[in-house]
Amino acid sequence: MNEAAAAVSLLRGASAAAAEVFKSILTRGPITRIDIARLTGLSQAAVTKAVAPLIGAGLVSDQLESQRDGQPGRPANPVMVVPDALVFVGIKVNADEIVGVATDLTTSILASDRRPLRSTNLDIVVDAIEATGTTLVDLLGVRAERICAVGVTVSGDVDAHSGIVRESAIMGWTDVPLGKILTGRLDRDVLVENDVRALTIGEHWFGVGVGTASFAIVTIGRGIGSGIHVNGAVVEGAYGVAGEIGHLPLTSPDRICPCGRRGCVEAVAGTPAIVAEVSRGHGKDLSIDEVLDLAHRGDPIAVRTFEQAATVIGTAIATLVNLAGPELVIIGGEAVSDFDLFEEHLRAAYAEHAFGAASRCRIVTRPHTFEDWARGAAASAIRRLAENRI
Amino acid sequence: MNEAAAAVSLLRGASAAAAEVFKSILTRGPITRIDIARLTGLSQAAVTKAVAPLIGAGLVSDQLESQRDGQPGRPANPVMVVPDALVFVGIKVNADEIVGVATDLTTSILASDRRPLRSTNLDIVVDAIEATGTTLVDLLGVRAERICAVGVTVSGDVDAHSGIVRESAIMGWTDVPLGKILTGRLDRDVLVENDVRALTIGEHWFGVGVGTASFAIVTIGRGIGSGIHVNGAVVEGAYGVAGEIGHLPLTSPDRICPCGRRGCVEAVAGTPAIVAEVSRGHGKDLSIDEVLDLAHRGDPIAVRTFEQAATVIGTAIATLVNLAGPELVIIGGEAVSDFDLFEEHLRAAYAEHAFGAASRCRIVTRPHTFEDWARGAAASAIRRLAENRI
Ligand SMILES: [Zn+2]
Ligand SMILES: [Zn+2]
Repeated sequence: MNEAAAAVSLLRGASAAAAEVFKSILTRGPITRIDIARLTGLSQAAVTKAVAPLIGAGLVSDQLESQRDGQPGRPANPVMVVPDALVFVGIKVNADEIVGVATDLTTSILASDRRPLRSTNLDIVVDAIEATGTTLVDLLGVRAERICAVGVTVSGDVDAHSGIVRESAIMGWTDVPLGKILTGRLDRDVLVENDVRALTIGEHWFGVGVGTASFAIVTIGRGIGSGIHVNGAVVEGAYGVAGEIGHLPLTSPDRICPCGRRGCVEAVAGTPAIVAEVSRGHGKDLSIDEVLDLAHRGDPIAVRTFEQAATVIGTAIATLVNLAGPELVIIGGEAVSDFDLFEEHLRAAYAEHAFGAASRCRIVTRPHTFEDWARGAAASAIRRLAENRI
Repeated sequence: MNEAAAAVSLLRGASAAAAEVFKSILTRGPITRIDIARLTGLSQAAVTKAVAPLIGAGLVSDQLESQRDGQPGRPANPVMVVPDALVFVGIKVNADEIVGVATDLTTSILASDRRPLRSTNLDIVVDAIEATGTTLVDLLGVRAERICAVGVTVSGDVDAHSGIVRESAIMGWTDVPLGKILTGRLDRDVLVENDVRALTIGEHWFGVGVGTASFAIVTIGRGIGSGIHVNGAVVEGAYGVAGEIGHLPLTSPDRICPCGRRGCVEAVAGTPAIVAEVSRGHGKDLSIDEVLDLAHRGDPIAVRTFEQAATVIGTAIATLVNLAGPELVIIGGEAVSDFDLFEEHLRAAYAEHAFGAASRCRIVTRPHTFEDWARGAAASAIRRLAENRI
């Protein structure tokens, strides 16, 4: 058993208290044992006892660069993870592309690979994921030995526990046992997760969400999704579904959504709906680039279509905020690069419908690259290991 | 300092670990120390150490009836709270009535008092709350010495931290420092909380929610509200607002809500909106009882109005479920007694808009009496003490 495998065994066998200690070091380090005790409610003795085997396994260090000359093992020394101790692979499955990254324990990218998909046929997607995995292993060289898990994310209703993609409108999949298929093909532990929830996990553990009591990520673009972080964790849904802001019934019933329901947000505000609406207005099939160009040049049909989409998105965000009351909403997703087309009407609709003090929730944008989404997939795998979940 | 005051001091000074132990005994007892350790992640030694002073203060006992002949202090003996150790007052403020209860530590009712309000004028309401408090003290007799806190609940945007009712459409209040006013008048610790959130806290700690991973309560009637329990706690909202299902923008913008916004759920589905709509259809002012009578006798205008209200409520519940993914939704509120008028269209709209596996969330009804709402107010005060919150 190599060193990484031994470290993984240690984490899998950790007590609840030891897992809490590792999680504190991972997400808050460098941090002193005293602060870990304060954060977890454990005694300092219990923290010291939990830290020792983590140091022994090479997962954690109390010898930071600046302390090389100091005395090791002093309780006031801050401890931090050794990022290189373990390697994770994160893969984001889009309808037309696979984006893969290999990261360290803090989701810093060590290697990346993108490859186009010519269809969403399951065999083709699985082959492409395997090819991306092989490329990442090649790029990592000897560090590939330290890969301990793979996170794969897909848009839609994903049951992370069973690894089944229950419904993905964008991929055209129903009840696909992706986790089982990929575990066989990659010969690694594979976690399958909803893409937006994974992005939210990544932001919570390693991004803007660290230290924030509650926040939501809303993604705009081809799909409209959200991840809600409240009461200390991402909302998972008792049946694996939560944060489905794209399928809230906030528009007219004569708008049919790709999911088959009537009046969904995505049926007006998703990129395909916007493109279809502007195309209809101009009496010809336009590309997304042509539609964006028309809107930026002030074409009234395109401008009005974006305004309608923005109003629906702002109303949906107010709905989320009225129910879940987050401190902050972060808008991401591929359409954020054209946020100027949405901003005014989105903020106006939000202000109109946010209830009372809920309106103090700030709305900010943050462009996530596809590599960021893939890092979210890796973060999900890191979290599962650190929280000792099966 | 009497015995109850000493017990309160002990809880206020408790460590995070000791507070967790007390909470486990309060909500899960009778429970063995071994099971408390499993539930909290603490060592058995830490649990035993935390239990001892709770027994000393008379808050907890390991001498259940059935064990009177056994040996005290044995680790396998289950421990439970001594319900009578402390007394709490819970007060639910309605627009036309004050409902007050005095309860023990498990929200069992020891005494109750209801009195009509002739207006929602703040002075009149405060006088009535004080009179209810005095009546409860009289009814309790010597047990009144053990009253340690008062919970007061109001519909609307309530900041429990500051005790300010920021906006209550039903009471016609804005920025009322109710907590401060009542603390002065009652000479007790007073907690002010949103009424539906308090009901949800009561169900979570002492009702159907014990042991349920996630659930929501949706109340229908004069107001439409909800409390969402997810990731181990009721969602409070970063700015004190959450669960505002009554003000989700799910209806036509030409419907004006009592809150002043357009298209809110309450503007169609609240009892006043239903009464107004049926009155308009019949060209005369009807009472709620007349409207209910018409609907039960099959009057087409009344039936259609209830169907529209039910459709909006079902759509709102689907919205909540798609975002928060609870395991169970409990419908309560005064209109539950006429649920037959709502059920069919409510369930149809829910089924239409619930997304994927989220539709597995069950919807059940549970009639809450106004005393149950007041017990929720007491439960909020109990929770604040047990969780050692200020
Ligand atoms: Zn849809
Ligand atoms: Zn409203």
